[in-house]
Amino acid sequence: MTTEPELDGPALPFGPTTAVPDRLDTGVDRAVEILAQARDMCGPILRESVDSLPDPLRRMAGYHFGWWNPDGSPSRAGSGKALRPALAFCTAALFDTGPALVAPAAAAIELVHNFALIHDDVIDGDLTRRGIPAVWAVWGMADAVLLGDALHALAVRVLVAHVPSAAVGAAVDRMESSVIEMCRGQQEDCSFDGRHVTGVLDYERMAMGKTGALMGAACALGALCAGASKAEVSALDRFGRELGLAFQYTDDLIGIWGDPKVTGKPVSDLKRRKKSLPVVAALRSGTPAARELTALYQSDMPMSPADIARATHLIEAAGGRETTQYHADQRIDAAIAELPDLAAAEDLVALARIVSHRDR
Amino acid sequence: MTTEPELDGPALPFGPTTAVPDRLDTGVDRAVEILAQARDMCGPILRESVDSLPDPLRRMAGYHFGWWNPDGSPSRAGSGKALRPALAFCTAALFDTGPALVAPAAAAIELVHNFALIHDDVIDGDLTRRGIPAVWAVWGMADAVLLGDALHALAVRVLVAHVPSAAVGAAVDRMESSVIEMCRGQQEDCSFDGRHVTGVLDYERMAMGKTGALMGAACALGALCAGASKAEVSALDRFGRELGLAFQYTDDLIGIWGDPKVTGKPVSDLKRRKKSLPVVAALRSGTPAARELTALYQSDMPMSPADIARATHLIEAAGGRETTQYHADQRIDAAIAELPDLAAAEDLVALARIVSHRDR
Repeated sequence: MTTEPELDGPALPFGPTTAVPDRLDTGVDRAVEILAQARDMCGPILRESVDSLPDPLRRMAGYHFGWWNPDGSPSRAGSGKALRPALAFCTAALFDTGPALVAPAAAAIELVHNFALIHDDVIDGDLTRRGIPAVWAVWGMADAVLLGDALHALAVRVLVAHVPSAAVGAAVDRMESSVIEMCRGQQEDCSFDGRHVTGVLDYERMAMGKTGALMGAACALGALCAGASKAEVSALDRFGRELGLAFQYTDDLIGIWGDPKVTGKPVSDLKRRKKSLPVVAALRSGTPAARELTALYQSDMPMSPADIARATHLIEAAGGRETTQYHADQRIDAAIAELPDLAAAEDLVALARIVSHRDR
Repeated sequence: MTTEPELDGPALPFGPTTAVPDRLDTGVDRAVEILAQARDMCGPILRESVDSLPDPLRRMAGYHFGWWNPDGSPSRAGSGKALRPALAFCTAALFDTGPALVAPAAAAIELVHNFALIHDDVIDGDLTRRGIPAVWAVWGMADAVLLGDALHALAVRVLVAHVPSAAVGAAVDRMESSVIEMCRGQQEDCSFDGRHVTGVLDYERMAMGKTGALMGAACALGALCAGASKAEVSALDRFGRELGLAFQYTDDLIGIWGDPKVTGKPVSDLKRRKKSLPVVAALRSGTPAARELTALYQSDMPMSPADIARATHLIEAAGGRETTQYHADQRIDAAIAELPDLAAAEDLVALARIVSHRDR
């Protein structure tokens, strides 16, 4: 239980968001293009490294990445968004460093991200990932834990094999310290769901570990591969971390208000009474809606579709949705404020904008 | 199912084992001393690195290492044997390299070993580790998976922070490739228990991954830190791998015939119909005992204490115990044959001897 002051409350002023509607469309197009390029640029090294795994780990990994079906036949399942690789590429580009030098770091971060997803699905009991059954739902818990472990090791091997030797020690250390933070954040996330009170600052600390740290590492590694100074690496790490918070908050919005057909996640976060930011903010709002929501969250009964609909309404009535969008926008502003040269960093800004205005 | 030729069978000649009774006692004393020294020498860096973890991961890790109770109070639970650190120290000593230079690598390997134990206990559902409840039995599956992930990352950080820069890339790569092999081996081990036929060669391949690879890495890292040549590093890696096989086979013997009061493992491997080497060898023996054992292993009924006693007898009658001891001794011979200079490698030989003549 926290005694820290809260960041927000029902009385918080809601200023204009950072989204600039008349420029957003161009930014979205550019961001979509950047993400597609990032997938293309780290695809070969990702494929090559996964191919180096012994079977059946190799086969499971390729299934998880959406390359093939459980039996090894080609699949049309989608891969991830490649946001973290894109951050690494765009960060390096700030220092005029091309993709070839950064691709291994981008692939390594993507491997870490995916090892964490595979373990998270085990931990959370999530049956579906990107619209297809999660690895553990196909091969069982044991294989999913082991595949995650192997992808983690593979990420380190990719870095050590390919990153310029002057940067390799710092790059590996930065990536692995983000893994430790990520574990801390995920551990806190799990523990929140069993606690009665979670403050917004607690939530922010959790999200910084669970989501911010690795996005920070993606940017830091891009900068390290480009030979940036310590101060530059740190600033870009902070950019990534702020972006990570915005990403998590947006994820929380999607987890309640997203369209399952678009998100590939069939179940609302509310079904298992997840204490995501909209819920935390609503519970702390001191409104009548908060009191009713508290009762719903404290009940031992399974959440029915009607309960979920009611909780969704209560969270919105208590300001949870608006507060979360506000925090997401604030974090985007904070991220952009870390960028040294906005004109040169247009692509990073485009990525930042899309993070808080996405539907999946 | 394998079509490979089998390494053994009931007709195999059983030569004298490699144990030299009149020298064994001295060897045991020396090995016990080496292990105690190894614990002392990598203790501080292990403690320091675990202390760098954020709570509650730090607290869980210290509990797992036997340093404190779940509430943080000091514990008298035993730590591990420190065999892998001892291998790293003794290997480096072959090249006149003292413990200070090798301690980080020894600690890193010990961290990897323990991350794997924590995940294995989750996977196997083992409630007890070193005589105390396993991490997952205290904190749950989610926290145990995350703690394992964090210790894996910590191992990499320790290597990167402390290993001489000329060796760091090779050391990290060797350690992480052994992790991938370990995952492959553990995955095979899990899959064996559901299959009807496992050959001894299949079993050996599994054990080389599950146990041999990391012991090989312990020796390889000791040699790398000492600036050994590629050929020397490879020979010592092979020494460690052979030793690892002997260790696994001895573990299998202890898993059936060990005294639970000594081993800290309260349950026979037979209770859950584990296909360890004595069982595999017995099932493949073509004897009447093998047929009765096959029926016991194919039954869906839980194994009663009487069933376990009967299975234990059948495995022995079918030659499974003797065959396993034979393979363990053979592996010790093969390990020792990899050592470049036996006189200088007395400590490694002492460790090798104790591995196949231990009771826990």
